[in-house]
Amino acid sequence: MIGDPSSQAPGFDFTRARIGIVGSGAVGCYYGGRLAQHGADVHFLMRSDLEAVRARGLEVRSCDGSFHLSNVHAHGTPEEMGSCDVIIIAIKSTANASLLMLLPSLLKPHTLLLTLQNGLGSDDFLAQHFGAHRVLGGLCFVCINRTAPGVIEHLAQGHIALGEYAGPPQDRTQQLAAWMRSAGIRVSVEQSLALARWRKLVWNIPFNGLSIAAGEIDTAQILASPPLLALVREIMREVIAAATHLGHPLPDELVEKMVESTRVMAGYHPSSLIDYREGREVELDAIWGEPVCRARAAGYAMPRVEMLHQLLRALSAAAPRRSSGR
Amino acid sequence: MIGDPSSQAPGFDFTRARIGIVGSGAVGCYYGGRLAQHGADVHFLMRSDLEAVRARGLEVRSCDGSFHLSNVHAHGTPEEMGSCDVIIIAIKSTANASLLMLLPSLLKPHTLLLTLQNGLGSDDFLAQHFGAHRVLGGLCFVCINRTAPGVIEHLAQGHIALGEYAGPPQDRTQQLAAWMRSAGIRVSVEQSLALARWRKLVWNIPFNGLSIAAGEIDTAQILASPPLLALVREIMREVIAAATHLGHPLPDELVEKMVESTRVMAGYHPSSLIDYREGREVELDAIWGEPVCRARAAGYAMPRVEMLHQLLRALSAAAPRRSSGR
Repeated sequence: MIGDPSSQAPGFDFTRARIGIVGSGAVGCYYGGRLAQHGADVHFLMRSDLEAVRARGLEVRSCDGSFHLSNVHAHGTPEEMGSCDVIIIAIKSTANASLLMLLPSLLKPHTLLLTLQNGLGSDDFLAQHFGAHRVLGGLCFVCINRTAPGVIEHLAQGHIALGEYAGPPQDRTQQLAAWMRSAGIRVSVEQSLALARWRKLVWNIPFNGLSIAAGEIDTAQILASPPLLALVREIMREVIAAATHLGHPLPDELVEKMVESTRVMAGYHPSSLIDYREGREVELDAIWGEPVCRARAAGYAMPRVEMLHQLLRALSAAAPRRSSGR
Repeated sequence: MIGDPSSQAPGFDFTRARIGIVGSGAVGCYYGGRLAQHGADVHFLMRSDLEAVRARGLEVRSCDGSFHLSNVHAHGTPEEMGSCDVIIIAIKSTANASLLMLLPSLLKPHTLLLTLQNGLGSDDFLAQHFGAHRVLGGLCFVCINRTAPGVIEHLAQGHIALGEYAGPPQDRTQQLAAWMRSAGIRVSVEQSLALARWRKLVWNIPFNGLSIAAGEIDTAQILASPPLLALVREIMREVIAAATHLGHPLPDELVEKMVESTRVMAGYHPSSLIDYREGREVELDAIWGEPVCRARAAGYAMPRVEMLHQLLRALSAAAPRRSSGR
């Protein structure tokens, strides 16, 4: 249905592709739902929400227009779901090992894997186990929550920054972006996925981390605390310096830009805080561990981020665990 | 009664001195009580415990021998207490400003000030306002709690490291040490009070700080957490390096020595954790702020200690305040 993913030839027909969503939480359901809303053949691999979605469909309350899907292709196992042309991966990175069980029966030789996961490491994991040629990544800038089984609340933003795992954008990258845009999703095509990931980490590392470590507070409370705001800026500068050292140059002006854009968000609860509060595993490696590790391997120390990672590891280990989530 | 404190001449007669205790919490009551137990003329400036001590005396339950003082010179105001030859200062450093009101009516020209306060800055404060020549410092290594008004529980240790604020020990330092030893207090005389303060900070900075920042846990829980133990060691190395940079050389072996001696303490609750939990002000400046500030002034960065200070400032500001304590 779509061509060899390693080829640069034009003619990918995303409009006729069979789409699989692996990880049907807020992100998977929202973007998968948008694509289905606009006529794509979308199949959801579900666990906890399976019965609710089969019974009542998928409800998306969105600042960009609410909708309800009554006939959802919701599957309980990969075998039932069957192979797909494009698989959108939106599980927590902490559950990546489960992909070794879930993906093989979904793959065709040409299947593309688009990871919408946070932080560093997930695209490398997919490339290592399933082939770099089929991996793309999308960074979601979206405020979104799953408020009940089969019910998604999309509060703000929604933009995806899309890029190839290896190298600059290809024709398929542009075609994928165009197809997603035709479903009402704002998409930018990134020259470097790695650079875009580090840019997002400049925000996620301090705000997701301090929202937990400074006593379970939101972004407005962080900004309102002079010592925490100073710490946010220092951590941001540390991440920018590490990224630049690793060959992903980011400008120092990003610090004030991001602080200002965070003010506009008012009291936002970063996803890691929600995970922590609800007893789910926090993405410690993807957001804090991997950046520190990669910088250290290149001879660059990130003492603040490393310390934040250590504190978060200790706090997470001590927190009551309620579920692990697929 | 005792000579000019700036003189090095022998003949200080501590046995006949009038002793004032300013700050009658656990530390002040314990050491003041020991001295009174052995016949010293000790006067306590009290606030919250005044009525209880006047009614029932001072009860000290101590691993070094319990005792009860029935006739305690307990005073409610400095004017009532009157001037003293030696004033032992054991208030929280966060309340140092109150000394500007409390001390003047207690001072004679020759009065010595012995601060038993934690961290950096209190001796400088006393020297600045009341004259460096009269200031000595003692670092208390003691596990001690005030369990009820007028009731002190001394659990372990009890050693005081004594030194002159300015310069090496004098005759008076040795005589003060000998006098305290005669009351059953273990005392060492330090060649450099500043060095001794930094050595104590190597322990206090990580353990007092992480006991709060890592979710209100004790020393055993810190040691049992691999990320926190790693962080303890990194913070200790940072403090040792800063002290050495500031001219107070400390050996790296201190790290493992202190980790090992902390294992023996089992689940100890650092004083800052107790302050934090009970809604009292934490000694943020003395333990974390001043060291960072002094190191920075000498061109040395302490990113981990600075970050710990920032987190503690934010956590303390958000914590409910119950009392400020004299």
